[in-house]
Amino acid sequence: MTTRTFDPATYAPEHFLWEFSEGVATIRLNRPERKNPLTFESYAELRDLFRALVYAGDVHVVVFASNGGNFCSGGDVHEIIGPLVAMEMPGLLEFTRMTGDLVKAMRACPQTIVSAVQGVSAGAGAIITMASDLRYASPEAKTAFLFNRVGLAGCDMGACAILPRIIGQGRASELLFFGRSLGAEEGLAWGYFNGVFPAEELDERVLELARKLASGPTFANAMTKNQLNHEWDMSLEAAIEAEAQAQAICMKTRDFERAYRAFVDKRKPEFEGD
Amino acid sequence: MTTRTFDPATYAPEHFLWEFSEGVATIRLNRPERKNPLTFESYAELRDLFRALVYAGDVHVVVFASNGGNFCSGGDVHEIIGPLVAMEMPGLLEFTRMTGDLVKAMRACPQTIVSAVQGVSAGAGAIITMASDLRYASPEAKTAFLFNRVGLAGCDMGACAILPRIIGQGRASELLFFGRSLGAEEGLAWGYFNGVFPAEELDERVLELARKLASGPTFANAMTKNQLNHEWDMSLEAAIEAEAQAQAICMKTRDFERAYRAFVDKRKPEFEGD
Amino acid sequence: MTTRTFDPATYAPEHFLWEFSEGVATIRLNRPERKNPLTFESYAELRDLFRALVYAGDVHVVVFASNGGNFCSGGDVHEIIGPLVAMEMPGLLEFTRMTGDLVKAMRACPQTIVSAVQGVSAGAGAIITMASDLRYASPEAKTAFLFNRVGLAGCDMGACAILPRIIGQGRASELLFFGRSLGAEEGLAWGYFNGVFPAEELDERVLELARKLASGPTFANAMTKNQLNHEWDMSLEAAIEAEAQAQAICMKTRDFERAYRAFVDKRKPEFEGD
Repeated sequence: MTTRTFDPATYAPEHFLWEFSEGVATIRLNRPERKNPLTFESYAELRDLFRALVYAGDVHVVVFASNGGNFCSGGDVHEIIGPLVAMEMPGLLEFTRMTGDLVKAMRACPQTIVSAVQGVSAGAGAIITMASDLRYASPEAKTAFLFNRVGLAGCDMGACAILPRIIGQGRASELLFFGRSLGAEEGLAWGYFNGVFPAEELDERVLELARKLASGPTFANAMTKNQLNHEWDMSLEAAIEAEAQAQAICMKTRDFERAYRAFVDKRKPEFEGD
Repeated sequence: MTTRTFDPATYAPEHFLWEFSEGVATIRLNRPERKNPLTFESYAELRDLFRALVYAGDVHVVVFASNGGNFCSGGDVHEIIGPLVAMEMPGLLEFTRMTGDLVKAMRACPQTIVSAVQGVSAGAGAIITMASDLRYASPEAKTAFLFNRVGLAGCDMGACAILPRIIGQGRASELLFFGRSLGAEEGLAWGYFNGVFPAEELDERVLELARKLASGPTFANAMTKNQLNHEWDMSLEAAIEAEAQAQAICMKTRDFERAYRAFVDKRKPEFEGD
Repeated sequence: MTTRTFDPATYAPEHFLWEFSEGVATIRLNRPERKNPLTFESYAELRDLFRALVYAGDVHVVVFASNGGNFCSGGDVHEIIGPLVAMEMPGLLEFTRMTGDLVKAMRACPQTIVSAVQGVSAGAGAIITMASDLRYASPEAKTAFLFNRVGLAGCDMGACAILPRIIGQGRASELLFFGRSLGAEEGLAWGYFNGVFPAEELDERVLELARKLASGPTFANAMTKNQLNHEWDMSLEAAIEAEAQAQAICMKTRDFERAYRAFVDKRKPEFEGD
């Protein structure tokens, strides 16, 4: 579409790393010496990126990866927590809405988002993995929704809505009320992680999966994500009607025809996302 | 009720097998040489059957079983996919609404539906198991929500609404984005299957369970199913009020009194579904 | 607040035991010779207690514990089931609404509720554990949503809404349609229980966890519980906005500042719940 303006080849963020290749973009926070904490600026730039990705037709999958052995330690204590403690309500709400907007943008963009989690993912770092579509970890990864250990509620950036839908209400309650770390194998058993790979293989294994997704019917995959977002507060009847419409749209794509032709010709389909 | 008109003893479908005994009906698709694919006609006849079951007071449980070692391979490539590729939007939407209507009818009928899954259940075949109340499999069963492998979205017949509620949002996303097969043991660990039995025992074991359900308080069981359908987009307050009303209705059944009398007399209750 | 009137030190219920120490209240039903069945009177007194706890600023956590090796055998057959069988609709609905009000009050009070389950928890006993925020069991505990074995529907006191959110729709359906017992280890694997401890250690281990919760940021924890209750039928967008507001409120508490000061001073924070 001519209105699309985001160019993944030239995009150069200030506050995190960006790579792009074969339809797959990779993001890494870039303060590895402090386990990659977020700042007001990196939050805002991430939010703006995921909003812009709606117009990035060439980007089919986003990998949110680790850096220096850690994913993200959450909001920086000195650069975020300190200022918040001194802030009045309008400023606080502006901040919590900005962080919530990051999750909204991650869920609203058409790309499948895959987290590759090593080491620490804490607070907003844990939220970023939660807001992804798929999550893979290395065995030593620690995921901590630790808000109540810093005096806050577990209801941060959508956690009370999204986390129970991934791991169930009882396990989500435990993590949010105690703020304790979830280990990688435990997270796999609970359905939080989709797979656990050795640290030295994690990035490559996730990239392989991402390339596989990127070579799939990406228009249809974006519709899947859209429906997963919108159906969870619909009635059963409304959800089924919504899917009848969404799937009828997908049956008008050329990827659907490509799959049929490939089947008839007894070869593997090649999808192009239109 | 005198307005009931469906007679399970004489019902003779054209496109699948039907057995009826002791309150339990068994359905089997009947093209075992091709792993039981669906056609436009079998879809429509199944939809009509499940709609008619609302008026079938003698049928208390429906077993959806396998045939020739497979459950259902989904929409027939030649008889369904081919025609869809050539179809305009009104025809496509008519088709996706018909398939959605099958799921709506399976959820809306008062009978408990139990799937007995051997071999392949793919695409719409997987959906039929998902739309059942209970699912049992043999060890080699493969369940594939493979829509994206044929160029379509995972939002087919309610999958984006129902599947996350059975196995969680993360695992549902993995199955829908990759289209990969879910194995029987994995499905058991994830809560998709309620049990795994050896292939040669599966039908009999599921029939035993079905007979047990059929000899239970079937009016009350139908109310349980009704509430499981309707409460998932209700507020907590509204759901609890809805259950107060639904359970008060059930306390007016004779089955409730039968259970009480049996308890007082120290014998097993015999329920009659009224 | 001056309008608070509930005094946990002098509260003396008629129909169950009550202890209070260090911000943690412990409830135990008290008919151990009959596995602690409920009566009309104990239901009503529990409902009134949980409603009053909204005004009990000193009570931060409620432990619902066992007595004589059992949790609760549900509604007393002679004192509840018998009278219900003879009752007309207005009386039945008054009863089912009263029992539902107990669950509403357990979910609406600000305290984190932790169940410590030994032996039998059946019917309304199982519901009380389900309506808790966290659940711990001893290895021999049996949890039975056995309503359909007494001729009733599984939709009792919110079970069709809450149980699927804890253990998934398929497993909840199995428990509600068959009324069978859930074992402790199975319940742990399913995410129903948050932990299993030896019977002789259970009460002390749960008390330790409760004291830990009581020494946490209890205002924020109450907000977490509030959001877990209210977000499950919200859209994703609405839930994230609700959390932005709820967390901004929590950022105005002194507990948030206490956590920050403690971090800067390199000591453990001491929360006071304001």
